[in-house]
Amino acid sequence: MPDLLPLFPPQGDHDAVELGTALMPKFDAAGLVVAVVQDAASAEILMVAHMNAEALKRTIETGTGWFWSRSRGKLWQKGETTGNRLEVKEIRVDCDQDAVLLKVEIGGDGVACHQGFRSCFYRTVPGGTRGAELRFDRAMPRVSPAGKAR
Amino acid sequence: MPDLLPLFPPQGDHDAVELGTALMPKFDAAGLVVAVVQDAASAEILMVAHMNAEALKRTIETGTGWFWSRSRGKLWQKGETTGNRLEVKEIRVDCDQDAVLLKVEIGGDGVACHQGFRSCFYRTVPGGTRGAELRFDRAMPRVSPAGKAR
Repeated sequence: MPDLLPLFPPQGDHDAVELGTALMPKFDAAGLVVAVVQDAASAEILMVAHMNAEALKRTIETGTGWFWSRSRGKLWQKGETTGNRLEVKEIRVDCDQDAVLLKVEIGGDGVACHQGFRSCFYRTVPGGTRGAELRFDRAMPRVSPAGKAR
Repeated sequence: MPDLLPLFPPQGDHDAVELGTALMPKFDAAGLVVAVVQDAASAEILMVAHMNAEALKRTIETGTGWFWSRSRGKLWQKGETTGNRLEVKEIRVDCDQDAVLLKVEIGGDGVACHQGFRSCFYRTVPGGTRGAELRFDRAMPRVSPAGKAR
């Protein structure tokens, strides 16, 4: 793993964070920032995950998506076992630097979700007077069977 | 505030959460889920915020975006003071139900970020050998002056 980046600096003052050009992520109490993954071509949201400093550093350095699994308590490279790696086309950070956006091209069969759907957001919440019973998005094909570690 | 929804049920087993039709959000230790806000027309990511159960319930019931401010420790309706309210066109939930996606039409002058930019993601991280010095997205106009509570 190359070591191109210095450690992220501690957050500066409000203006430095929001209007400056230094990347100084605001990691939460668990040491994480939110990472939103968007298909660079279609703009579809594929998944939401978390990154610790190491995952963010690796993602920036290597141009592939690395995350921190809260449930497994470990660093993981998206698609390591399935080939659905994320080729990062662009990284953005939000105003207060507690969230990053990755615009990606996803490898392999293009499936982002371990349930076999292209995106993890395969269910809608009707809402309002239509209630909160989830509906599957029938327009989103289930490409591969569930249960594969992605 | 109407009370159309029952309290969210505790999370069921893995299959109920990921392949069922009951909304059973997986709130984190702080009682929050991640909320990603996407422009329904352009598919641009406008902001990322957090929701507690009350914010999620209000969003589902009212069709406008409500969130929990971690920094201020309070519930807030996006755009309450500025008119940049979020008219929710669609709500989606992800596989493990710890993130929601709102597809919205934003009101007022269409500015999502309190810094006056249309989206909070107004800076890119070049990455790789190009380093981590942030670059402002010059194609994203700064619509209004900073400092307005949004």
